[in-house]
Amino acid sequence: MPEIDYQKILRRIKPSESEYSEVNDLAVNLISIINSVAANNNIDARAVLVGSVAKDTWLAGKADIDIFIEFPLNTEESELKDKGLFLGYECIKRMQGQYELRYASHPYVTGLINGFEIDFVPCYSIKDSSKLKSAVDRTILHTEYVKKKLEEEQKDDVILLKKFMESIETYGSEFKVGGFAGYLCELLVLYYGSFTQVLEAASDYWHYGYIIDLENFNTGSGFSDPLVVVDPVDKNRNVAAALTIQKMSEFIIASRNFLENPKEEFFSKKIIKYNVNLIKNGFNKRGTKTILLVFKPPEVPADAIFPQLKKTETSLKKIIERAGFQVYGSGYWTDQTNIAIILLEMLVWELPIIKKHAGPYIWSKKHQKRFLDKYGSNAWIENDQWMVDIERDYCDVESLLRDFLTPKNIKHLKSGKHVKEEILNHVEIVDIDHFINSIDDEDLLLKFLYEYINKSGNIWR
Amino acid sequence: MPEIDYQKILRRIKPSESEYSEVNDLAVNLISIINSVAANNNIDARAVLVGSVAKDTWLAGKADIDIFIEFPLNTEESELKDKGLFLGYECIKRMQGQYELRYASHPYVTGLINGFEIDFVPCYSIKDSSKLKSAVDRTILHTEYVKKKLEEEQKDDVILLKKFMESIETYGSEFKVGGFAGYLCELLVLYYGSFTQVLEAASDYWHYGYIIDLENFNTGSGFSDPLVVVDPVDKNRNVAAALTIQKMSEFIIASRNFLENPKEEFFSKKIIKYNVNLIKNGFNKRGTKTILLVFKPPEVPADAIFPQLKKTETSLKKIIERAGFQVYGSGYWTDQTNIAIILLEMLVWELPIIKKHAGPYIWSKKHQKRFLDKYGSNAWIENDQWMVDIERDYCDVESLLRDFLTPKNIKHLKSGKHVKEEILNHVEIVDIDHFINSIDDEDLLLKFLYEYINKSGNIWR
Repeated sequence: MPEIDYQKILRRIKPSESEYSEVNDLAVNLISIINSVAANNNIDARAVLVGSVAKDTWLAGKADIDIFIEFPLNTEESELKDKGLFLGYECIKRMQGQYELRYASHPYVTGLINGFEIDFVPCYSIKDSSKLKSAVDRTILHTEYVKKKLEEEQKDDVILLKKFMESIETYGSEFKVGGFAGYLCELLVLYYGSFTQVLEAASDYWHYGYIIDLENFNTGSGFSDPLVVVDPVDKNRNVAAALTIQKMSEFIIASRNFLENPKEEFFSKKIIKYNVNLIKNGFNKRGTKTILLVFKPPEVPADAIFPQLKKTETSLKKIIERAGFQVYGSGYWTDQTNIAIILLEMLVWELPIIKKHAGPYIWSKKHQKRFLDKYGSNAWIENDQWMVDIERDYCDVESLLRDFLTPKNIKHLKSGKHVKEEILNHVEIVDIDHFINSIDDEDLLLKFLYEYINKSGNIWR
Repeated sequence: MPEIDYQKILRRIKPSESEYSEVNDLAVNLISIINSVAANNNIDARAVLVGSVAKDTWLAGKADIDIFIEFPLNTEESELKDKGLFLGYECIKRMQGQYELRYASHPYVTGLINGFEIDFVPCYSIKDSSKLKSAVDRTILHTEYVKKKLEEEQKDDVILLKKFMESIETYGSEFKVGGFAGYLCELLVLYYGSFTQVLEAASDYWHYGYIIDLENFNTGSGFSDPLVVVDPVDKNRNVAAALTIQKMSEFIIASRNFLENPKEEFFSKKIIKYNVNLIKNGFNKRGTKTILLVFKPPEVPADAIFPQLKKTETSLKKIIERAGFQVYGSGYWTDQTNIAIILLEMLVWELPIIKKHAGPYIWSKKHQKRFLDKYGSNAWIENDQWMVDIERDYCDVESLLRDFLTPKNIKHLKSGKHVKEEILNHVEIVDIDHFINSIDDEDLLLKFLYEYINKSGNIWR
C-alpha cells in the first residue's frame, strides 16, 4: 500500500496550539461564569463542557463549544427551562455576546462570543441512561464515555476520520446529510483502534445491518438500520440510526478507494469546476426533460425543511408515475432562505390520450355490473378481465403538475404542512433550460445541479 | 326472461330434409364403395362415418363428411397408411372427385365430391382409449359415445349451441380460434341437458379451472386448463384443452348477455360496418403509434402459421419492452396466402439517449470490480447499488425493429422457423397511416383492424 504522511495532514486539520488554548480558556471562563451566577442566584445547577471540545476531537477552525447546564433530577421541567436559559443568557451578556433562543427537542440558548458559536443547554444530571428525561441528557454520558476510553493518540485518528468523512460529504447526522455523527466517529475509532482500521473494516466486511456492540449488550439485533452501533451508554439506542444506506455505501466505497490509493486529497473537499453553460449542456446531452418546481422555503428549522422537501419529492414522483409517466431521477435543494427546488428529470413526459383501464374479473356477475353500467359495450375482455379504453386525464407531465399544485388538488400531495403552504402560495414550474439562464456561476444551486448530473463524485479523488 | 322462438331459428340453421338425405346418401354410398374396394383387394379394413354427420349435429350447409377407415390393431403402420390412402384415393376416383393428400398427426386424403369436402382417414380399430395408437383413433369412440347418449331432441340443442358459438366467434378448437370443438359442444349439452342450461351454467358458476366429468373418472384435477372437460372415452384427456381463457370468457359474457336479453341476432354473425377512413380515424384518435410488420406468410398449414405468428408477436413485444418502450396492444393476422401482419401499437415509442444501467451491489469488492473496470468513475451509487448512465442502443422503436429483423440479430427473435425465414426474406415496417391507404374496403384485413380497435364486439348484440 502506498504510504501517506498523516502527520502532514494532521498539521493542517488539527487545531493549532493557540486555537487549543483559546477555545479551552474560553470554555473554562464560561463555565466559571455560569457556576458563579448560579451560586449568586441560589440556583442548584452546574455547567459542564461536552462535545468535541471536551473530548479534544474537533477540527481546526470548527470548534463547537457546547455547555450543558445540569440540574438535579427532581427539578420541575419549567424551572429547569427558565433557570437554564437565564444562566446562559446572563453568561452571554457578561461576555458581551449576541444571543438567540433556539428549540431542538427542548429549548436552549446560543451565543456568539469572541467569534465562537456557543450553545448553552439546560439538562438533567443523570448517572445512567435509565434515568433519561430527554435526548440531550445523554450527551453528558457520551462525553464522559469517550473521555474515559479514548487514548491520547486515538484523538488524531478521530480527527482524521472526521475530516475524511467531511471531505467525502458523509459527515453529520442531520437529515440534510444523513451521515455519521461525531460521536459515531469516536466510537468507530474506539472499536477498531485507528483511522485505517475503521476504513479497512468498512471496506472489507461491513454489510447491510452490520452490528457494532462495544459493551456487548447484545441488543443490536433489535434494530433494522443499515448500520447498528449500540450506544455504549444506552443499550436501547442505535448511534447510527440517522445514517442512510446511501451515505454508508459512499463511505465504504471511498474507504476502498482511499486504501487502494491513499491520497491527501481525501482530506479536502473535492475541487469541482462548473459553470452555467457546462451544466446546461450536461442536461441537454441527456435527452431527458428536466422540470423544476421553484418556491420559497418555509421559515422553519433545517430539521423540518429537509424532510418536508424529501417527502414532497417522493410524493410528486409517485403522482407522476401513477399517471403513467416515467421519472428518470429527482432531487431537492434549498438555501433555506430564498429558494427551494424540487427537480424532476423525466424519461417519459408525454403520453397518448388513450389509456387502458382495468376493471373487475369476468367471473362474478355482481362485480362486473358497476363496470358495465358505466362503460357499456365500450368494455372489452382481456383474458378473464374487463378492460376499457378511456381518455387520459393528463397527456403531459407539466399539465399534471400545474393541476395538482392547486388548492383543489394539493391535498393529494404528501409534502408536509409548511412546504405545502409555500407551494400553494407560489410555485413556478419551469424547464431547467429556461431556469438556468437566470442564475449566475457563483450560485450554490449550481453545485447541486452539477452534482445531480455527476453523482457520487465525492467518493473519488 | 323474454321469450325467443327457437323453432324459427332452427328452421334457418338446421339442415333441410333434402340436405339430410343428400349428405347421408352420399356418406352411405362412399362407405359401401370403400368396403367393396377393400374386399376386392383383400384389404382387412372397414369404413366408418364419424363426426357431426354421423351424429346429426351439423349446421345447415356445413356438412363435413368424415370417413375413417379402420384397420386391425396388429396392422403395420406403413401398411395402414399405404392401404388407407389407397382406399380413399380409389373411392374419390370412382366418384370423379378431386383429391388432395394432407398431413395432420398422420396423413389422410381429402376429396371434393359433389361439392362436399370429404376426409378419408386411416386409423386403428380400438375398443377403448387404452389401446390408442394415434389421436385420430379416438374419434370413432367419440362418435359412438355421443350417438349412444344424445337424445333425439338434444340434437337441436347442440345445433343451437354450435350456431351461437359460431356467431360469437368462439367455435372451433383450431389454434386460430382457440374456442370450443364440436364434440365439446355435444358433451356440454349432454352434461347440462339443453342449450339454455349450458348457457346458464357458464353464466352463473363457471370459474377458472371449472371441471366437468361426465363419467366421474375423478381425473379432472390433474389438468391446469381454464376449463376441464374430462373426455368420457379417455380419462386422461381434457376435451377443452385447446380452449383459451379469452374464448371461455367471451362465451361466458355472451351467455349472460343472451340470457338477459335473448335476441335472434345471437344466432347470426354480427353485422359490422367499416371502411378505410373509419379505421384510419379510429387509430388516429387514439394518439398512439401503430406499426405494422408486413411479410409473406410461409407455405405451411394453418396449424403451423398461427402459432408462429403468435410467438412472433409475443417475442417482439418482449424485445421492445426490454428496450424500455411500451406496447399498448398488439395482434397478428394473415390471409394464409399473400400477406401476414404483426401489429404493434405503441404507447411509448421514443426515449431519451440516456439510460440507467444497474450494476452489482456495493457490498462485495469482488463483484464491483468488473463493473468499475468498465465504467470507472462514471459509475455512481444509488442506495447500496452501483449505477451508471449509459447510451441507449435505440432511441425509437422503428430503428430497434429495423436492426433486429436483420440476419445478424434475428436469432434473438423467437418466432418459429418458417415465419423467421419469411421475415428475413422480406419485411416491411410501416406506419398504419401509410399502410392503410394501400388496402381497399373489401379487404378482410380491414375486419382485423376494425376488431382491433373495437374489441369483444361479438359478445354484444
